[in-house]
Amino acid sequence: MPDTAQVTTNGGGPDGAEAPAGLEGVVVAHTQIGDVRGLEGFYHYRQYDAIELNRRRSLEDVWYLMFRGHLPDKAEREEFGREIAEHRALTEDMIPFLRLVAATEPFDPMTALRTAISFASQRAGFRSWLDIPAEQLYDNAMQISAQTPVLLAALYRLRGGQQPVPPDPELSVAGNYLYMLSGQRPDPQRVWALERYLVSTIDHGFNASTFTARVIASTGADIGSAVTGAIGSLSGPLHGGAPSRVLEMLDDIGSPDRAEDWVRAAVRRGDRIMGFGHRVYKGKDPRSALMREVASTLGGQTAEFAMAVEDTIVRVLAEEKPGRALNANVEFYAGVVMDASGIPRELFTPTFASSRVIGWCAHVLEQVSGNRLIRPSARYDGQAPPQPVPATD
Amino acid sequence: MPDTAQVTTNGGGPDGAEAPAGLEGVVVAHTQIGDVRGLEGFYHYRQYDAIELNRRRSLEDVWYLMFRGHLPDKAEREEFGREIAEHRALTEDMIPFLRLVAATEPFDPMTALRTAISFASQRAGFRSWLDIPAEQLYDNAMQISAQTPVLLAALYRLRGGQQPVPPDPELSVAGNYLYMLSGQRPDPQRVWALERYLVSTIDHGFNASTFTARVIASTGADIGSAVTGAIGSLSGPLHGGAPSRVLEMLDDIGSPDRAEDWVRAAVRRGDRIMGFGHRVYKGKDPRSALMREVASTLGGQTAEFAMAVEDTIVRVLAEEKPGRALNANVEFYAGVVMDASGIPRELFTPTFASSRVIGWCAHVLEQVSGNRLIRPSARYDGQAPPQPVPATD
Repeated sequence: MPDTAQVTTNGGGPDGAEAPAGLEGVVVAHTQIGDVRGLEGFYHYRQYDAIELNRRRSLEDVWYLMFRGHLPDKAEREEFGREIAEHRALTEDMIPFLRLVAATEPFDPMTALRTAISFASQRAGFRSWLDIPAEQLYDNAMQISAQTPVLLAALYRLRGGQQPVPPDPELSVAGNYLYMLSGQRPDPQRVWALERYLVSTIDHGFNASTFTARVIASTGADIGSAVTGAIGSLSGPLHGGAPSRVLEMLDDIGSPDRAEDWVRAAVRRGDRIMGFGHRVYKGKDPRSALMREVASTLGGQTAEFAMAVEDTIVRVLAEEKPGRALNANVEFYAGVVMDASGIPRELFTPTFASSRVIGWCAHVLEQVSGNRLIRPSARYDGQAPPQPVPATD
Repeated sequence: MPDTAQVTTNGGGPDGAEAPAGLEGVVVAHTQIGDVRGLEGFYHYRQYDAIELNRRRSLEDVWYLMFRGHLPDKAEREEFGREIAEHRALTEDMIPFLRLVAATEPFDPMTALRTAISFASQRAGFRSWLDIPAEQLYDNAMQISAQTPVLLAALYRLRGGQQPVPPDPELSVAGNYLYMLSGQRPDPQRVWALERYLVSTIDHGFNASTFTARVIASTGADIGSAVTGAIGSLSGPLHGGAPSRVLEMLDDIGSPDRAEDWVRAAVRRGDRIMGFGHRVYKGKDPRSALMREVASTLGGQTAEFAMAVEDTIVRVLAEEKPGRALNANVEFYAGVVMDASGIPRELFTPTFASSRVIGWCAHVLEQVSGNRLIRPSARYDGQAPPQPVPATD
């Protein structure tokens, strides 16, 4: 037997082509959900610029667009609102389960959400999409998207020793989320601000969690498996990041007059500045520009402070690293906007998940419509097999 | 703006290369865990033929090999046995949680296992591997691998209204699993048979669930997220299959003398014959050959019947589809061996998960040792953006 350690026959055929590390730039699917045009500085949902859509349409309209492929007319909007309200309600027996998860140490909201989504999918009887009609899979997608913020708010309140607040059918998705968290009628401007954040994060190209959802769905698994896996991916700091880190940085800077010295020292130490730079956008991150506007409209001390710090960071980076245009990314203002909307810091990443779930589900619905099992190969580069198995000593 | 609907700039750079559908044959990683040599008719764990290893070594030895890269000597084996026993025990507060999951309708063991692993990972405080030392991640991997059969057996017994049976430190992994399911001291030959099945399914190239685990781990997520996602992938019928389908087919055939007519009619109707054919192995599936031997050693009516049916199917297929060599795959005897070992049918796929989890964890440990975020691209082929956003009507 020749030494074939560098040969893979995993696919049963000739050597596969070797993809770049991390599959960067490798096209693994066709999609009509949306894309990112990093060089052109925009991203889109379906055929619409995601920022323009965000300025002109509600989260519910965009959700409809992602699931159905077109923006709703008046009748479709009303019907969709009823659909969301129906799917949102938790069955009573979910509460003891959530109570148990919320009471368990250590508690982490993303991990708890992962468990809750997995269990809610069992409770709802989600099954392989191979075994159910397309309408039922759509229904599952509606339920999991509608319930994610409800599960999250219930976990948060139970963790704090409070009773969950059931959703109010009269409120929007964003309004309900704030209402279910606080138990108070939400301030319309805060609802507006949070909704802009949520709409901005529904989808963003073929990121790791979206890819995870599609890989899992490609096996024929139920949509609960796909979303549970995607939440796991989003919980990774290299993907979902940590929007609270920017607020921690602002806390550390303390006041606007300290910003310049703080930033210059950090850059000279070689520290990474939180919320700056993006793999895809070489110019401004369009989400960051919108979130700055939203923060500015909301006003308040943190927003003013953040804007002053952003300006200082941009100026100092331009001086310290000339030629490397580093701009604020979505994370820089995400925390500021969520904070000003009344979202507690520990819920920043799960709140991101509560809108991204709409994107994941849209991708699952698309994946199954022309499915092929996603199963790549690996190149074995260990010692050439088969070596004789030594006897047990 | 030109029509760029066919252009992806997802990666922020020039057009990516387009991979074949399902990434078939595309090498996305290097690995030293193992591989499948379909054309040569074998698969290997590290440098050893997986079947030879299976004949000569215990599951515990192979687990050690997968995690540590070499077979254990006597002292290492004893130490590893203690490590497994320590990690296996569930904390008392897991039981009320499992009781609640087991009592919830509808109940599906794979879905319940997904939820249980997710919760057990919270309870154990698993965190991003970026934030913990390598030894702690290894420890997490030991725990999740050791606990999977324990969680499964506990869920099964609670579902049946029985108390969970705690593992016995004197028993092997396979012996314990049978013991925890039945509460009876297991028959050594059944333990031996089940162990051969479990060893044969620890790893098998870069399949969809293994890939899922690596994609999730690549984001920096905790190993609980990776395994929870992988269980979701394995639950898909296009990946994990349904080992019970072969037993259902045998039930349907009823007796050996009816096999020929049954098979010939099925082939002529164009029905797929369960447990036959494999994407990678063009000749015999080496796992199937071993499982036939194991079934034959165990004996019993089902085993004898299955062997007679296999021979008939091979003969009839050769007559009806000359030139297409179709052989039994691992699924054909997997159900027979599990059934003869005393595993209930509804636990066949979760039992598969209980050994494959060792492979997933080995892959996660390897992934993080030279990590790069796995984030491919997609080609947008919808209507060219940006289209003007129509006003709300």
